[in-house]
Amino acid sequence: MKLYTYPPAPNPMRLAIFMAEKGVDIETEVIDLMSGEQRSDSFRAVNHWGTVPSLVLDDGTVLTEVVGMYSYLEEIYPQKPLLGSDPLSRALILSWDHRCFTDGFQAVAEALRNSVPAFAGRALPGPVSYEQIPALADRGKERIQAFYGVLDKHLEGRDFMVGDDFTVADITAYVFVVFSGWVKAAIPDECVHLSAWHQQISTRVSVQS
Amino acid sequence: MKLYTYPPAPNPMRLAIFMAEKGVDIETEVIDLMSGEQRSDSFRAVNHWGTVPSLVLDDGTVLTEVVGMYSYLEEIYPQKPLLGSDPLSRALILSWDHRCFTDGFQAVAEALRNSVPAFAGRALPGPVSYEQIPALADRGKERIQAFYGVLDKHLEGRDFMVGDDFTVADITAYVFVVFSGWVKAAIPDECVHLSAWHQQISTRVSVQS
Repeated sequence: MKLYTYPPAPNPMRLAIFMAEKGVDIETEVIDLMSGEQRSDSFRAVNHWGTVPSLVLDDGTVLTEVVGMYSYLEEIYPQKPLLGSDPLSRALILSWDHRCFTDGFQAVAEALRNSVPAFAGRALPGPVSYEQIPALADRGKERIQAFYGVLDKHLEGRDFMVGDDFTVADITAYVFVVFSGWVKAAIPDECVHLSAWHQQISTRVSVQS
Repeated sequence: MKLYTYPPAPNPMRLAIFMAEKGVDIETEVIDLMSGEQRSDSFRAVNHWGTVPSLVLDDGTVLTEVVGMYSYLEEIYPQKPLLGSDPLSRALILSWDHRCFTDGFQAVAEALRNSVPAFAGRALPGPVSYEQIPALADRGKERIQAFYGVLDKHLEGRDFMVGDDFTVADITAYVFVVFSGWVKAAIPDECVHLSAWHQQISTRVSVQS
């Protein structure tokens, strides 16, 4: 397998934490998003979407979505399950991962990509050029605040997003909080449950590497 | 278990096709989205997001995301696997389901919810009110056309989205095409591979019920 990634970016970070938790190491090539290398012909030949992370399997299949990489790697490296260990936990973990992506990640992406000059003409990731929509940046910032509240309410009385173990639901929620800092948002003081959970997750070796 | 749903809507349709393929029947209550019943106190007591489908399990847990319902029901009713039968197919199916949701479903939702007067103040599903952004409706329509092209290219030489069997990747792609009709979009004539696949999928009993 070979992983193409750019460690500081949020979706690569999700996968990196997952791999660190499992103790999995994969040959890696860094694609420099800062210089636009993801749009180069050579990288588009690997992944036509031009996105990272991209995981090339030994048979040449390319996985382009983190949820697919999670699923594949969990089966190949079953040690330390991060997608749940019974039907209910698996369902809830996938649900929260999805929710954190659509209501969390996408909110930050809306705020960032529709306001920062470097993303002009690239308001969405991928091969098609879309212009920035300033009103969408404002909406993204509102949605970030709303989602802090959702997570705070959910985490009351809980150590982890689902059940008694650290899972990908925690990873995606944690990286959402990190990513929200890119648009100068931060967990509000009143979100004490989210703050306590965030502080605890921050101590994990996997998120510090 | 008890399912709260509104059959004509796209996410309920995904789950209904899944259940029909498996021959699974679950006690169902219809929540009338046309009259705003999803925002009633009684339904918000079931699912605070105010979205359908919502699946209440026997232990009282409520699943609110289709991907979580898929995962749970696939394990409880393993007959006729719709999420794949080996690590690679499972990874690809989850990946395409995600991609069809973010690039397909969300594109149609952008186009619909930001233009139709009935969605004024409700540009996103869920409990928070967001105003319509007309530019986002236009972008949604562009993205629909782009995603027809993505599916057409992918389906060249294929009978199904992943491998040799009908899976949830086909369901989400198919319902995207149905949903795109809500904003008067339709598969362009030049998308011959997508058209052929769509015609074939349309003959299935599960999508006609």
